Amino acid sequence: MTASWQEYLDLHQQRFIDELLSFLKIPSVSTDSAYAGEVRNAARWIAARMERAGIEGVQVMETTGHPVVYGEWLHAEGQPTLLIYGHFDVQPADPLELWVHPPFEPTIDGDLVYARGASDMKGNDLLPVIACEALLQTTGAIPVNVKFLFEGEEEIGSASLEPFIRAHEEMLSCDMVVCADGGVGSKAAPVVNVGRRGLIGLEVQVTSAATDLHSGGAGGIAPNAIHALSRILDSFRDHEGRILVDGFYRDVRPLTEEDRTEIAKYPFHAEDYQAKTGIKAFFGEPEFTPQERNTARPTLEINGIWGGYQGEGTKTVIPREAFAKITCRLVPDQEPEHIQQVVAAHIRRFTPKQVDVTVTASPGDAEAYVLDRNHPGLAALEEALTAASDAAPVRVRGGGTVPITAMFKNILGVDTITLGATLGHDGAHAPNEHFSLSNFARIQRVFCMLFEKIGAGVVA
Amino acid sequence: MTASWQEYLDLHQQRFIDELLSFLKIPSVSTDSAYAGEVRNAARWIAARMERAGIEGVQVMETTGHPVVYGEWLHAEGQPTLLIYGHFDVQPADPLELWVHPPFEPTIDGDLVYARGASDMKGNDLLPVIACEALLQTTGAIPVNVKFLFEGEEEIGSASLEPFIRAHEEMLSCDMVVCADGGVGSKAAPVVNVGRRGLIGLEVQVTSAATDLHSGGAGGIAPNAIHALSRILDSFRDHEGRILVDGFYRDVRPLTEEDRTEIAKYPFHAEDYQAKTGIKAFFGEPEFTPQERNTARPTLEINGIWGGYQGEGTKTVIPREAFAKITCRLVPDQEPEHIQQVVAAHIRRFTPKQVDVTVTASPGDAEAYVLDRNHPGLAALEEALTAASDAAPVRVRGGGTVPITAMFKNILGVDTITLGATLGHDGAHAPNEHFSLSNFARIQRVFCMLFEKIGAGVVA
Repeated sequence: MTASWQEYLDLHQQRFIDELLSFLKIPSVSTDSAYAGEVRNAARWIAARMERAGIEGVQVMETTGHPVVYGEWLHAEGQPTLLIYGHFDVQPADPLELWVHPPFEPTIDGDLVYARGASDMKGNDLLPVIACEALLQTTGAIPVNVKFLFEGEEEIGSASLEPFIRAHEEMLSCDMVVCADGGVGSKAAPVVNVGRRGLIGLEVQVTSAATDLHSGGAGGIAPNAIHALSRILDSFRDHEGRILVDGFYRDVRPLTEEDRTEIAKYPFHAEDYQAKTGIKAFFGEPEFTPQERNTARPTLEINGIWGGYQGEGTKTVIPREAFAKITCRLVPDQEPEHIQQVVAAHIRRFTPKQVDVTVTASPGDAEAYVLDRNHPGLAALEEALTAASDAAPVRVRGGGTVPITAMFKNILGVDTITLGATLGHDGAHAPNEHFSLSNFARIQRVFCMLFEKIGAGVVA
Repeated sequence: MTASWQEYLDLHQQRFIDELLSFLKIPSVSTDSAYAGEVRNAARWIAARMERAGIEGVQVMETTGHPVVYGEWLHAEGQPTLLIYGHFDVQPADPLELWVHPPFEPTIDGDLVYARGASDMKGNDLLPVIACEALLQTTGAIPVNVKFLFEGEEEIGSASLEPFIRAHEEMLSCDMVVCADGGVGSKAAPVVNVGRRGLIGLEVQVTSAATDLHSGGAGGIAPNAIHALSRILDSFRDHEGRILVDGFYRDVRPLTEEDRTEIAKYPFHAEDYQAKTGIKAFFGEPEFTPQERNTARPTLEINGIWGGYQGEGTKTVIPREAFAKITCRLVPDQEPEHIQQVVAAHIRRFTPKQVDVTVTASPGDAEAYVLDRNHPGLAALEEALTAASDAAPVRVRGGGTVPITAMFKNILGVDTITLGATLGHDGAHAPNEHFSLSNFARIQRVFCMLFEKIGAGVVA
């Protein structure tokens, strides 16, 4: 053990990249039951990788849904215990035709690896595992106690995780959670996450007849399920993006001047964002800045619609049914159950009387989460990140959802800090998702330093 | 030749039914290019059947699209010539899961045969062929001259037929057209068709970004293609079904008192219709009766929508694109091209400025058609039908579209009467399409009588 952990990381970086490519080849799509075996394969893969790193007591454990993976290294006597969280499931890859490379055949182009799950979050899963390996292989120890919890249902709302955590409170007890799902910005513009939005989901089905009807024979007398669904969907937001659902904003904690000052510092480059996403214009409540709307304001988005004839050519049919999938991002202090209720009530109210509607709540609600700005883990993270970046990190709230943050707070009583290598425009959930390999290497170092800072007593 | 044609029809009816089942097994779906070979197989099948009936000069002829079938029997010197029109293509069969029997495995249950194309219109194609066979086999002649024209593109708007007719004006010259696509009501409540609506179709594509975006990362700042499409679709009609497109009603010929009196006589049983279709309530302009709205008022219907994630579970995506298919039924004197233009202009006007829209006109426009109430073919048809029914027929305008009626009037200068065995609720274009075998036999007789009435000089 003559090399430093820094040297070890450099020496073995090509192997770590090769390992990442192997991991990315597993199509662990959790939302589609056809891929359940692949989600399990991904669990086994990361479990084996943890064992090779020197993590102890590694096991693939059953839940009511996809399995979770646990492991630990608990020999840092007197030191705090960090529970490291990640997920090995991925979003579906469709629309497949928009991928330049097949989503489960990871392809490197320059600094980027393209694959479904590259940035969300198989690359990030490897970061703490590699950091532990580097420390164990060079210093013989990790400066803190670590526990790992990797799940397989994050992309579908982590429904099985809450009962699992409740059933294993003792095993999972810790001083704080380090969530590897997310990012800490670029080297030039680092950020630390101090909050995330919550989530609810609904599916709407409109039915207008027992069968599809001929648009000649029934046109002018029969209701049309798609017209009725369009009425419902168009009633949700005004032309500027304000949500018109009664009660939707009732519990929203107003932004303070302090909040708005903090949010105004977020790195955000409108032109870059437009170039990267191809949007023609920004959209949303004009009384808030884009950064506020994107992180600290709730949303309602239609994620999918279908109904009637979608094939080639024309089919002159009055469709009997039409469907939509809807999700809302929530902010403090919105209650998921309350938002489910008010959106469902709105749908019923705007359903034309000639048709029937069914509203089904999707599993996996999550409350929004905000981290106490005085949390000692936050200070350690900011120190470690500053050492690996060109600037001091900015504190940001994320627009996305990691259901486990609120869950760990409620059940285990601990806060969550976030450390991962995902960048802002990595195409998570979209075709051509990608991940920066140089940032992958950089954040491995930040993980080592975070363990060192916390082990050195930055945490009181 | 001792039997009468009536006896011949009785004697051979089981064979005619078996032949119909063979014809229905061919999945001649014209809108999907994957089935082009099957459309051609259907053409060959009916051509062979015509030859067996004694029709002469039968040929499968090429067009710019699917082939047509021609045949003739022209030995009734000094008698009028009837051009008999039908189509051997069918609508797509999806949604397949709603069929009780597979759509291309025709199944008889009591008096009904269930199959895609049963009522629209392979059963009807056989009627005039069988009538000619029965007359030729028993009397040795048909009392009028007949020409047959069967096409394979009716369900997609008959786009190749117009150039074909123009190129074969001489071959197709005639005194009137008998369209076998449609029905003449039941034995108890017979009807004759005196008009049909026209048709236009459009496809709309809304694009909001270069890729699908993460609803966490982009929610609150990015436009959503489905929300934008919903706005467009919901702008077409008011809550009572009036079409809000500027200029849409400009050229609509107002209904006269005479029209409304005629329409009021249509056999229409609201409760039966609701029971049969499963609609909860009727829908449409309250200032018109259901029968008027269904036959003499124009419509705008969304036939299909799709966009974003439509699979199992949740996908938290802001979709980059969304699509809809739209058709309008037209009445006299709406011009298809004008309606295409005003609907497209409306779509552009209601498209939110943050997204792009593309409007594509579907091929196969058709003008509405109204038959002169003094046409001598109408009188012959009414006489023949009265003889085979329990009541005198009521004159009705149909809600559907047969593009060839306006085409024959414009190119060949002749009017079209309609004689077929389709009933009101045969599920044309819908799952579990079916056809009455007793009505099949009845209308074979009416065809024989129509030929006799016209041959006997009912036509001046």
